Amino acid sequence: MKEINAKDYSILLGDDTLDALLAHLIERSYSQVFVLVDENTEKCCLPIVSQILFDIKIIRITSGESNKNITSTQIIWNELLQHKADRQSVLINLGGGVLGDLGGFAAATYKRGIDYIQVPTTLLAMVDSSIGGKTGIDYNTIKNCIGTIQPPAAVYIYPRFLKTLPEREILSGLAEIIKHALIDDEAYWEYINKMQSIDSADLEYLILESIKIKSSIVKKDPFEQGERKLLNFGHTIGHAIEAYSLLHDKAPLIHGEAIAIGMLCEAYLSNTCSELSSKELQAIEAIVLKFFPKYSFRNIQLKDVIELMYQDKKNNSDGINFTLLKRIGKGKINNTCNESQITLALNYYDSL
Amino acid sequence: MKEINAKDYSILLGDDTLDALLAHLIERSYSQVFVLVDENTEKCCLPIVSQILFDIKIIRITSGESNKNITSTQIIWNELLQHKADRQSVLINLGGGVLGDLGGFAAATYKRGIDYIQVPTTLLAMVDSSIGGKTGIDYNTIKNCIGTIQPPAAVYIYPRFLKTLPEREILSGLAEIIKHALIDDEAYWEYINKMQSIDSADLEYLILESIKIKSSIVKKDPFEQGERKLLNFGHTIGHAIEAYSLLHDKAPLIHGEAIAIGMLCEAYLSNTCSELSSKELQAIEAIVLKFFPKYSFRNIQLKDVIELMYQDKKNNSDGINFTLLKRIGKGKINNTCNESQITLALNYYDSL
Repeated sequence: MKEINAKDYSILLGDDTLDALLAHLIERSYSQVFVLVDENTEKCCLPIVSQILFDIKIIRITSGESNKNITSTQIIWNELLQHKADRQSVLINLGGGVLGDLGGFAAATYKRGIDYIQVPTTLLAMVDSSIGGKTGIDYNTIKNCIGTIQPPAAVYIYPRFLKTLPEREILSGLAEIIKHALIDDEAYWEYINKMQSIDSADLEYLILESIKIKSSIVKKDPFEQGERKLLNFGHTIGHAIEAYSLLHDKAPLIHGEAIAIGMLCEAYLSNTCSELSSKELQAIEAIVLKFFPKYSFRNIQLKDVIELMYQDKKNNSDGINFTLLKRIGKGKINNTCNESQITLALNYYDSL
Repeated sequence: MKEINAKDYSILLGDDTLDALLAHLIERSYSQVFVLVDENTEKCCLPIVSQILFDIKIIRITSGESNKNITSTQIIWNELLQHKADRQSVLINLGGGVLGDLGGFAAATYKRGIDYIQVPTTLLAMVDSSIGGKTGIDYNTIKNCIGTIQPPAAVYIYPRFLKTLPEREILSGLAEIIKHALIDDEAYWEYINKMQSIDSADLEYLILESIKIKSSIVKKDPFEQGERKLLNFGHTIGHAIEAYSLLHDKAPLIHGEAIAIGMLCEAYLSNTCSELSSKELQAIEAIVLKFFPKYSFRNIQLKDVIELMYQDKKNNSDGINFTLLKRIGKGKINNTCNESQITLALNYYDSL
């Protein structure tokens, strides 16, 4: 088992992490242990967890970004109340990014905050969303509009959960992995660049490297006053495309797919508005197109997508704020781009 | 103007604090300034504030504990969203304890937290609830069931607001002032004990002393792991009586009135289960009965009141947790009392 120390908590990774989770629960003498699941993790992951943990109470929510809302939050609060959960209770979030964000928010606000533990079950949650203490729900169609920054008590990553994960979900996690390399680590980029596909031998290495990068950035700036904004590369355009797709597509893009598009558009902005070379842009283009299917902008109103970007939390009143790349392996925060530059970037993706 | 430094923020007290608030807003270059009011503070306090601050946007909620709920929180979130409030916005809570707790919670969770400033307008809020960063709303009839601990950006106390406050509200604040003396400062107790009534010359001194006591305790233990529990003296029984009265009385007790009853019952417990002398209990009895009208338990079901105590956030699974007094000026946390002891304490109050 490998251990990475985040700011106030540990991230544990390996095939024996569930035993370590049990030891953690016993050591902390929690009064009650709740496990939050959705219909997928109840079926695929809970049976494994239940073999090791005992005396747990299950709270069920429905999967999907559209359920990451105040209604689901109230379901969790109500269940905790019904069981008279006190402040020494703990909530274990057994699921992907949506479940982790939602469960984290419910725990961070119940009785002014009880412990929560992230047990991510998707690659995306393992390498990204379970780390860093951002909790939240969507509100009035705005992603993560309501939330807190409240670190988990610990993160336990059990890579075997990935065996039950569809290929599309693995690729969704890869988008964040590519982002980590692009903003912070050229050698990591070279490693990813050489991969022809993602096999399970790669996975544990990728998870470890990505956690190291993310937790090191968050440690220096937990409240996103500066450096943490590096992690937003690809997310300003990516979030807007994700929200647009969620509203308009029958089979919407999932998070990492939208972020892959966002990264490519923002790499274009890095080339036209910052210092990224054209050769580097081509390399990023090649890797995104190798792993991710091309998404058609045919039915998209670009103006509406740009309008969605104005609602991004990272903006201030001066304009749309981007994290761009100076070069591969080196991000740069607080770049402002105007609407015509953004339109060109979207057109560039569309033309590929 | 007097300044007290809390953990991460300043508390300013005096007749020139509204000018200092203006200077603070200019210095921080907030993108938008929102002021939360209820129908009372809109009428009595906002005209004074509006003479000094400019370019403010007003958010209105309805006063009263019964509106400290998720619906009012959503009203605030919606108004912020409608004005496209970004993370550099600030919410000024112009009101008493209910409004401050509610506004603090809405701000602490909007876009994962924007600054909020407390401008308390009641004595209770000035000496107690505006200090310490506890935010929250009631949920499923449980007081402050949902909330966060998130310090304000600053607290500006303008004592002249008290001139418009009814006598009953002044007394409500006095209950927390008496509590501060009882748990931490015998000399302060002697001062209060000599007062025949509360005149405005006393008030500024009382506010300053109480803020010093409360902020010093909170500074040492912001997340209520230990010493901060001292501030719960009178609140275990007091909160239960308050909640019961809110459900059953046509004209319910207000917070401080319930806390005064709670303090007297818990002083009785301090005498029977801890080290408080009978002479000290009589002194506490005398001051509470001097300032607060006797509340009749005639229509109260004591069992129901005790049941409400089990829902208190401070409890763990071992029983009902109390902060008691070792002596006047010295509190002691983490005392467990059983139901028959609590019943005796309630009967003691009833027999007075």
